[in-house]
Amino acid sequence: MFRETHARSVAKALSWRILGTIATSLLVFLFTRRLVLSLAVGAVEFVSKLGLFWFHERVWDRIRFGKQQVEPAVIWFTGLSGSGKSTIADRVARELADRGHRVERLDGDVVRNIFPNTGFTRPERDQHVRRIGFLASTLEKNGVFVVASFVSPYEDSRQFVRGLCRNFLEVYVATPLGECERRDVKGLYARARRGEIDHFTGISDPYEPPARPELVIDTMKSSPEQAGEQVLAALRGRNNGV
Amino acid sequence: MFRETHARSVAKALSWRILGTIATSLLVFLFTRRLVLSLAVGAVEFVSKLGLFWFHERVWDRIRFGKQQVEPAVIWFTGLSGSGKSTIADRVARELADRGHRVERLDGDVVRNIFPNTGFTRPERDQHVRRIGFLASTLEKNGVFVVASFVSPYEDSRQFVRGLCRNFLEVYVATPLGECERRDVKGLYARARRGEIDHFTGISDPYEPPARPELVIDTMKSSPEQAGEQVLAALRGRNNGV
Repeated sequence: MFRETHARSVAKALSWRILGTIATSLLVFLFTRRLVLSLAVGAVEFVSKLGLFWFHERVWDRIRFGKQQVEPAVIWFTGLSGSGKSTIADRVARELADRGHRVERLDGDVVRNIFPNTGFTRPERDQHVRRIGFLASTLEKNGVFVVASFVSPYEDSRQFVRGLCRNFLEVYVATPLGECERRDVKGLYARARRGEIDHFTGISDPYEPPARPELVIDTMKSSPEQAGEQVLAALRGRNNGV
Repeated sequence: MFRETHARSVAKALSWRILGTIATSLLVFLFTRRLVLSLAVGAVEFVSKLGLFWFHERVWDRIRFGKQQVEPAVIWFTGLSGSGKSTIADRVARELADRGHRVERLDGDVVRNIFPNTGFTRPERDQHVRRIGFLASTLEKNGVFVVASFVSPYEDSRQFVRGLCRNFLEVYVATPLGECERRDVKGLYARARRGEIDHFTGISDPYEPPARPELVIDTMKSSPEQAGEQVLAALRGRNNGV
């Protein structure tokens, strides 16, 4: 939260006064053509209006009119490992931050690093996604945009998260399994195929595509830039003052 | 986050202009005793300075100087069930909100209602507290005061949370077990004694008192009002602009 300090009000009063007094003196001179009179009016105005302006600033700091609260959103990327969720999410988060919004970026890999004991069984994944959803919704409630990228393979868990949030934008990054496996950025698919990873989504654990996502992204057709733009356009379409 | 709308800048310019022009006309009249001249200067000033002031407002909206970011804190209440954590925490949260801060109140019972499958074994409690700590630290990072009340019986878990937060205030509500059991507000101690609740802190599960809490509250000596005041005083002592 921001509060305006007294120093700021004083600095504004001073900067305005200099500007204003020059204008007034000039004006009086144009009307009267008397230099000394113009400067005298300017001098008295300078002193008297400094206090008046400062007072005016302090009064307005108490007035809420025109202080616009931006309504945030939870932008939830779901999709297979390697589908491109994080890359697009990173772009969207950066764009929002550049526009001066508060943004929290939540990523599956990062959160699992902080909580290394989080398992991959159905109840563990479900509980994990629900708790992240609670985190996301609490941030949203406090004026923060959340850009979350999690495999989040179960419709149930995602619906729970949707229910917690006010303004939920589900983005399904629908890269086909074959393509994710072909890219295999982290080498996880190869390991999963060799049976080295249990409960691997797409290989040994199901992925349930979203029933009614706000946005589906086809990474075979859209570049990360284009995909990011699609997400921001969808946000703007919901009137978020983005 | 707040942005100042154009409408606000226009309204401020107008209100200032009315005030300012009256002062200028008065000033010119005092110097010249010529009524028509004074009104003419006022009229031209009114129009020309409206634009100048609006421009000045828009420039200042871009300047960060004097926009004070209040540094928030995570206030973490730990103690036995029935020790009085929630009562004191509620008071502190209300006081902070009344002072215009963003505040999130996190309570053990409330969070467990949202996540009914959270268990009470040591690893489950530990994981639970750590995840709440992550939530709290993320809110703090985004400018939100967090007032958390959790039994959080293990020193390890609390230290983990402390490590995540920037400004962590651990408040140990040190009501003795005998007193908590005598009060037994929720009837849980009686049930725990009858063996109906497993892993009940103080009865069938250990409580590890904090090694170095920022504040210890003795609810045998302090009323909830006094305890709340102690917490706020401790916060002020840490220079949080509270």
